[in-house]
Amino acid sequence: MIKIKFPDGSVREYKKGITSLEIAEQISPRLAKEVYAATVNGEIRDLTRSIDTDATLILHKWEDEQAKHAFWHSSSHLMAEAIEALFPGTKFGIGPAIENGFYYDIDPGNEKVFTDSDLVLIENKMKELASKNLTYVRKDVSKKEALDLFSKKGDEYKTELIGDLEDGTISLYSQGNFTDLCRGPHLPSTEAIKAVKVLSLAGAYWRGNEKRKMLTRIYGITFPKQKMLDDYLVFLEEAKKRDHRRIGKELELFTFSPKVGMGLPLWMPKGSEVRKSLIDFMTGILRKRGYQMVTTPHIGNVNLYKTSGHFEKYGADSFQPINTPQEGEQFMLKPMNCPHHCEIFNATPHSYKDLPYRMAEFGTVYRYEQSGELHGLTRVRSFTQDDAHHFCRPDQLREEFKSIIDLVLYTFKILNFNEYTAQISLRDPDNKQKYIGSEENWIKAENDIIEAAAEKNLKTIVVTGEAAFYGPKLDFMVKDAIGRKWQLGTIQVDYNLPERFDLTYNGSDNQKHRPVMIHRTIFGSMERFIAVMIENTAGKFPLWLAPDKAIILPISEKYNDYAQNVLQLLNNSDICTLIDERSEKIGKKIRDSELRRIPYLLIVGEKEAENGTIAVRKQGEGDKGAMKIDDFVTFIKEEIKKEIAV
Amino acid sequence: MIKIKFPDGSVREYKKGITSLEIAEQISPRLAKEVYAATVNGEIRDLTRSIDTDATLILHKWEDEQAKHAFWHSSSHLMAEAIEALFPGTKFGIGPAIENGFYYDIDPGNEKVFTDSDLVLIENKMKELASKNLTYVRKDVSKKEALDLFSKKGDEYKTELIGDLEDGTISLYSQGNFTDLCRGPHLPSTEAIKAVKVLSLAGAYWRGNEKRKMLTRIYGITFPKQKMLDDYLVFLEEAKKRDHRRIGKELELFTFSPKVGMGLPLWMPKGSEVRKSLIDFMTGILRKRGYQMVTTPHIGNVNLYKTSGHFEKYGADSFQPINTPQEGEQFMLKPMNCPHHCEIFNATPHSYKDLPYRMAEFGTVYRYEQSGELHGLTRVRSFTQDDAHHFCRPDQLREEFKSIIDLVLYTFKILNFNEYTAQISLRDPDNKQKYIGSEENWIKAENDIIEAAAEKNLKTIVVTGEAAFYGPKLDFMVKDAIGRKWQLGTIQVDYNLPERFDLTYNGSDNQKHRPVMIHRTIFGSMERFIAVMIENTAGKFPLWLAPDKAIILPISEKYNDYAQNVLQLLNNSDICTLIDERSEKIGKKIRDSELRRIPYLLIVGEKEAENGTIAVRKQGEGDKGAMKIDDFVTFIKEEIKKEIAV
Repeated sequence: MIKIKFPDGSVREYKKGITSLEIAEQISPRLAKEVYAATVNGEIRDLTRSIDTDATLILHKWEDEQAKHAFWHSSSHLMAEAIEALFPGTKFGIGPAIENGFYYDIDPGNEKVFTDSDLVLIENKMKELASKNLTYVRKDVSKKEALDLFSKKGDEYKTELIGDLEDGTISLYSQGNFTDLCRGPHLPSTEAIKAVKVLSLAGAYWRGNEKRKMLTRIYGITFPKQKMLDDYLVFLEEAKKRDHRRIGKELELFTFSPKVGMGLPLWMPKGSEVRKSLIDFMTGILRKRGYQMVTTPHIGNVNLYKTSGHFEKYGADSFQPINTPQEGEQFMLKPMNCPHHCEIFNATPHSYKDLPYRMAEFGTVYRYEQSGELHGLTRVRSFTQDDAHHFCRPDQLREEFKSIIDLVLYTFKILNFNEYTAQISLRDPDNKQKYIGSEENWIKAENDIIEAAAEKNLKTIVVTGEAAFYGPKLDFMVKDAIGRKWQLGTIQVDYNLPERFDLTYNGSDNQKHRPVMIHRTIFGSMERFIAVMIENTAGKFPLWLAPDKAIILPISEKYNDYAQNVLQLLNNSDICTLIDERSEKIGKKIRDSELRRIPYLLIVGEKEAENGTIAVRKQGEGDKGAMKIDDFVTFIKEEIKKEIAV
Repeated sequence: MIKIKFPDGSVREYKKGITSLEIAEQISPRLAKEVYAATVNGEIRDLTRSIDTDATLILHKWEDEQAKHAFWHSSSHLMAEAIEALFPGTKFGIGPAIENGFYYDIDPGNEKVFTDSDLVLIENKMKELASKNLTYVRKDVSKKEALDLFSKKGDEYKTELIGDLEDGTISLYSQGNFTDLCRGPHLPSTEAIKAVKVLSLAGAYWRGNEKRKMLTRIYGITFPKQKMLDDYLVFLEEAKKRDHRRIGKELELFTFSPKVGMGLPLWMPKGSEVRKSLIDFMTGILRKRGYQMVTTPHIGNVNLYKTSGHFEKYGADSFQPINTPQEGEQFMLKPMNCPHHCEIFNATPHSYKDLPYRMAEFGTVYRYEQSGELHGLTRVRSFTQDDAHHFCRPDQLREEFKSIIDLVLYTFKILNFNEYTAQISLRDPDNKQKYIGSEENWIKAENDIIEAAAEKNLKTIVVTGEAAFYGPKLDFMVKDAIGRKWQLGTIQVDYNLPERFDLTYNGSDNQKHRPVMIHRTIFGSMERFIAVMIENTAGKFPLWLAPDKAIILPISEKYNDYAQNVLQLLNNSDICTLIDERSEKIGKKIRDSELRRIPYLLIVGEKEAENGTIAVRKQGEGDKGAMKIDDFVTFIKEEIKKEIAV
């Protein structure tokens, strides 16, 4: 008999060799239908593998990432089987589970080009195969067996993958007529796969290498219930409507130009206005919190980055150094602002009394992302960080952390991100030698972060081994209006750069001491953050962020002159306002301005022109009645004030 | 007899072969002593050259640049004679007159290093030689004669220069024992050189080429009266005190780091604050004047610059293109913002009704200047232009010009630049083929500029042949507090980029039309402009630009707590305030804060702490009496409002 310990702490005895699925069945047949994978002694495994020793056991239901992973990974194999059945001779690359669903990269040969109608065929075939309740069977094989199998089949991608694996670690999974190289885990059978959708096609370089062949990537998703798929497809539709790339174009917020280059956003006037509102808002907060703004160039001599260590890090995969007419002189586009900030710190002497020095900059940095990785504003090659560095004494670390957490939560509140989580990343306690900084400092810094988070009532998860080599960190994730999670700000302790740049301050003992550095961003980057704001609000920015606050809609052309007067008054009061002077019906003007997501519609006709008023309508809320222009100015300014006060 | 026409329009007859000096003597012996060069039929010449035909004649007194030029050029030859007398074997490069004085680049051989005491020797020798009233004698020679002369002397720099000259155009000038290759003109003799100062030493590459030998450059200045030299040296001293590099360091406005790279300014907090005040000020104005702000990256694909033509222009002398992991893909640091702005213009369709589109950006650009050319903030490798482009219809050109001239004059007024001049640069009417754009457009654009300037009562000089190949322009120069001239903003018409980027708008005829583009800056660049502001104000910025508005000076440590309260209140009201809590005497605190150029000193002691007041003192004006904190906030805000209102 073996002892199995469950997450609730209870322990039961089972006969040796029992499977996780059998244990679930013994607990309840219903549970057995709801679990998709198991974690046995910390290792994630198939439900059908036997347990031969005492073990802790976690049974994973749909809610767990591990369950979804097994479910979608199995579905990926199912899709491959369907493809092989429909298109014999297709070669297979990799087919992983992803955050939502799965994909398979395939090589259909040079003749075949997949189209949307093929996706329907594949989907139908998958449904047909799933309904056969095919069992997933695991088999451990030698490297030679694996190579023989896939060589014979002619699957050169698989043999290349096997070539990189170590003998004795290789396993195959088969269901129906399909066998794949795979670590697993998988579902017991295809029975659970009740709802199938093959979603889309894309191109993807083999192994992400632009010099290798472009494969066809097919995305799909599956669920244990049709209702779940239906809900997901509604969600997808909603996400599509909120896609910041689409809304950015519609609202003329930003654009990309092939001549300027991929991943280099051009902020159009309205997008620049949103950006400026966010920057002004944040600058105001920073000022009150004792930050000092600096401005640094977008390049630095390579020596700067040799000192910082970035030169090695941003190597052949990055923007290459910039030569000059001077032999041996090279510059680099800055991938980070910290080296420049260290040099500003070093420009003047510092006393222990003057610390912390909180140095902030909205600094635009340049990082070369593969063209295939670029995505709207969320993955770009130039982005502006709301960056800051706190140079502080070790004894100030906890207070600094608290003040930054405070700032993050304050910002989230104003921006209506009411659901967020935070992750504390600590050292791997078994690998202390790979971290820079003294043992004493690390213990203190990790405690400081944990306790600062606790004092601020921050809900955190703590992960060991995820700290950077130069210090522990705290990352924030927010949940948006349709439940998606986005990583935003980060707070990182750094013991490395103060060493590399030989930063010092004069202590009360009149000796030189090494300050600690904290890197932190709140928004993350302006580009990414605005993308999140667009997707979260579906482009309906809060009033204070809306690039245009109002639009004047004259009922007919007769009132255009009066409308122009109103426009002048509002713009002079710094209320960005548009006017729609077209000779369209008022109903059409109202509908069009809704598409433009302008918060206030100001309708003017005979009565308004006579009384010097405007008829105010708020998008989504309707009529607010007639107002004098001055009163509207006051009203709008009050509304904005309310929005950015907590 | 020949007819000589004078600037006042009068005509007199003289015998053929008379010299300008003789004519001046005939008018009045006093005048003859006051003139230093003559312009004969548009050609600037020695006073002692004979006039053989009817001619127009301008006699140049000290006030004219032409007079100073001849005076200082002659002084440069005199200095060379002194050097040759003192240091035989010295080789001579070039020795031109400059804006203030002259220099000579010499090669003293590898053994000799010049020091400040050598400068005194040279100065004394110059005075001695000058007092001998040596005559400057011109001689036209053949190329061979010239080469023989300097080859024999062993002056390889001169022979190199002669090599580039055309036979028949070569002249020598001799005075005393010294003969130089020179076009002239020169003074009649050294008699007029009454005051001499050899100023300083520097290194300079031969022909400005970093690969050629580094020569010794010796700067000097001379005047016809000792009093003028004395005044100049006082001015120099004053200019030195105002040197923005020195004040920038003292006030911690900006710094340079060898690791980041020469010519790449790092704006420290206080400098960033000044920059931000200027940017916010200008942004506010732009908004009211219908500008739309955009934000663009600091790099662009080389294709962008091939389209714009900048790729050719910024060649081997510039920052070199940036390679990426993608073969054949190259980016460039942007030397100008216009190509990016054209791409934003092209991102959406435009109707004739929507023009002008006034697109503005505070855009940081990168240009590689030779390291020897770099100078503080006035000559840098990265600078932020207050850049804008007006895309307009040809019929809007004049109105746009007027609106920009308006904006420039408005800005100058607020910034207290009450003396300014403007230069209109037109086509060379004899070389029309070298300009792009239709004859009709050029005629119209030149007229528009001239008439817009006239309508705005702008004092201008008109120079033909100085227009850019792509359009005519208007440049502004301001005079600072000690009389120096600085070039600031520029307005340029451009017919070229709209062609190259195929910019179009839909006309009222529903056809595509080509807009005209106007480039314009007001400040020029933030870097250069702040340098000018520092030198103009000697670091005593107007209140609205001062990074710190006030400093609280507690009379003793007893009042530090109260001082901290005041600090909090002022900073919360957005009045950037410092505190001096040192246990120093109040007199010392006051003197120190004067050095820091902080506009208001707020002294707090027993009475103030009791009454909740501060004793206000204004730098340079003294006591303003006791004020409640709130009243001081209102007072400061009013003062700032007054400063930036016209």
